[in-house]
Amino acid sequence: MHLPFAAAAEGDVAAVLLDLFAILLAAKLGDELFRRLGQPAIVGEILAGVLIGPSVLGLVQPDGVFQVFAELGVVFLLFWVGLETRLSDMRAVGASAAAVGVLGVVFPFAGGVALGLALGDGSAEAIFLGVSLVATSVGITSAVLIELGVLRTAAARTILGAAVIDDVLALLLLAVATGLASGGGLDVGDLALVLGIAVAFVAFVALVGTRAMQRWPRALHAPRFADSPLLPAVIVCLGLAALAAEVGLAAIVGAFLAGMIVAETREQHPIERDVAPLYAFFPPFFFAFIGAELDLGSLANGGALLLLAGLTALAIVTKYAGAWLGAGALGRRERGLVALGMIPRGEVGIIVAGIGASAGVVGDRRFAVIVAMSVATTLIAPPLLRRRLRVDSAASRSSQG
Amino acid sequence: MHLPFAAAAEGDVAAVLLDLFAILLAAKLGDELFRRLGQPAIVGEILAGVLIGPSVLGLVQPDGVFQVFAELGVVFLLFWVGLETRLSDMRAVGASAAAVGVLGVVFPFAGGVALGLALGDGSAEAIFLGVSLVATSVGITSAVLIELGVLRTAAARTILGAAVIDDVLALLLLAVATGLASGGGLDVGDLALVLGIAVAFVAFVALVGTRAMQRWPRALHAPRFADSPLLPAVIVCLGLAALAAEVGLAAIVGAFLAGMIVAETREQHPIERDVAPLYAFFPPFFFAFIGAELDLGSLANGGALLLLAGLTALAIVTKYAGAWLGAGALGRRERGLVALGMIPRGEVGIIVAGIGASAGVVGDRRFAVIVAMSVATTLIAPPLLRRRLRVDSAASRSSQG
Repeated sequence: MHLPFAAAAEGDVAAVLLDLFAILLAAKLGDELFRRLGQPAIVGEILAGVLIGPSVLGLVQPDGVFQVFAELGVVFLLFWVGLETRLSDMRAVGASAAAVGVLGVVFPFAGGVALGLALGDGSAEAIFLGVSLVATSVGITSAVLIELGVLRTAAARTILGAAVIDDVLALLLLAVATGLASGGGLDVGDLALVLGIAVAFVAFVALVGTRAMQRWPRALHAPRFADSPLLPAVIVCLGLAALAAEVGLAAIVGAFLAGMIVAETREQHPIERDVAPLYAFFPPFFFAFIGAELDLGSLANGGALLLLAGLTALAIVTKYAGAWLGAGALGRRERGLVALGMIPRGEVGIIVAGIGASAGVVGDRRFAVIVAMSVATTLIAPPLLRRRLRVDSAASRSSQG
Repeated sequence: MHLPFAAAAEGDVAAVLLDLFAILLAAKLGDELFRRLGQPAIVGEILAGVLIGPSVLGLVQPDGVFQVFAELGVVFLLFWVGLETRLSDMRAVGASAAAVGVLGVVFPFAGGVALGLALGDGSAEAIFLGVSLVATSVGITSAVLIELGVLRTAAARTILGAAVIDDVLALLLLAVATGLASGGGLDVGDLALVLGIAVAFVAFVALVGTRAMQRWPRALHAPRFADSPLLPAVIVCLGLAALAAEVGLAAIVGAFLAGMIVAETREQHPIERDVAPLYAFFPPFFFAFIGAELDLGSLANGGALLLLAGLTALAIVTKYAGAWLGAGALGRRERGLVALGMIPRGEVGIIVAGIGASAGVVGDRRFAVIVAMSVATTLIAPPLLRRRLRVDSAASRSSQG
């Protein structure tokens, strides 16, 4: 017997609405509090997630509907960032972004593998530790760049471009790591296929999609709600996000490309105005989710805390160094911003660690430490970026004066 | 081992995004097609749901995340309607609304019970059939009234007020029916408690909430995203929807009251502009969900079709007659509109039938017939309302001319 709306009608729907209410309220209060303290709002939202999550109050669990809303949160966040980005701007920073992306992967990966081996890990486990340090959370960084009002700078575009390349490389390394973990070894043909599909997807969407939109902008302007092209744009976003996830990339890569494509239509401004409420509604679930995933219980011992401190320091230093070297073509100020902006790992490290846990090569404590490292890098980067921007603007004022 | 984002990272998230994409695309295409054919858009969205649902293509199942989005769809729909409604306007139509609500419940309930007994049902089964005919889907009717641009008329307000009363009475009858089905008999004290809580909730929120907002409008204006008060308003909406569901009412009653409360702040217009995208994004899931619940397989025999035809006719005639009698204080035109507007059963009949199925007093075929009756009344009302409005405006033009 199929009991659809009905089965959930009484208890379940009320429970889901209550969860969504509690998460949004907590995130908003954390946001507001940190804003008043002069701190980054997303840090407040993440800590609100820690508070209501299983580690402290246990009001909500980071799974099910919460997870879907978190995913849509980061999807709409990157869609918004894509709307603010032009393909031509990305081309202008292409070489720097590629260098930052590649070196920002090589250093953390090598560092993570070395740390794993030094801890006595097997090769599969050490490789998973390396991969979990690789990918920057472009969601977190984007939110900070938006909050600081510097999304349309060369540094921000370099970070975005590097994060896309970074994600493709992380996918490739993840394929290597899961191949090793399952005992299947390395199949170079398979890896080439994974890489080929990922590159083809990004290139096809960025180039063909953009041209299609430049030629047929009216395709997005079916009338609905005061002639807003919102729903067609959202459909493009969800479709490309799903497609990116299907080919093994992060869904947010598809969402970001969708935003860039939609932005090529001439009606960009009304689209941004209409997407803004979705961008206000969903992302707090993403930030709170990151916090709710933190498992303080598993960290409450000396060994775990030491490992966490070491892994976090390694994650920060290797990513900063790789990105700093890669960004050599940029000015000194941009270079520092790019290197700091690449630090947050956010959801990506957590995903990698989770896949490793499913494959049996990442244990419970290691998983909790990787999640905590992701949260720690995410909490550290926003204040550093903020301070750096303040120092820069003070320096540019005094050099002008 | 808790594997949150991770477990779903690869397959599940892609699958959920793909489902959401498919549902939104199908609903939007159905909407667009019916608009071009000069038909009500929501009928197109419901039929799109039938098409992609288990009965035809089987692309999506009406459960899980789809169900949550459907629920949020009708919640934001009613929140929107609440924003467009003033408590003072509701008071002006109060007596008519009460009469329409009460008579519009008594007639269908009596008709349903009589039909059940005539079919040889036991008393519990017959009472469930009666209750499933009782509650108007204010979600469907509201969407049609918005589409036709008549939401701010006395007829529309009477329908909204009657639908709230209707929902309280349905709750009471459902408590009776489940009491009988569980063999517990009738406890008048329990019923009085259910009724008391429901009435107290509506009265408290409508009166105290409204005054609180008139006095502290700034509470809703924390700055975020161009000073939009969207998130606080959405939090009020989700909170009252959850609370309404907790006390046993439909969540949409809470959402409607939340909209009325928020509308009392002076900044109503920016709120409406910001809520509009949520109202564009979520409701298509609700309409598609209604369609996806239709089980054509269980209806494909003479007996079921005959029962469906009879039940649908009974649902239409009894609700129309009850509402028509109740709306005696209104003009002839408004009276007809109110009576037609009360016809759609939509999700509410489905919920009641589902609870009956869980309790073991509504069989599979009966459940499928009740769902189909709900969809049928929902598909029939919009064209009738549309035609009635056209006849009226033609008549008023000729009487003026």
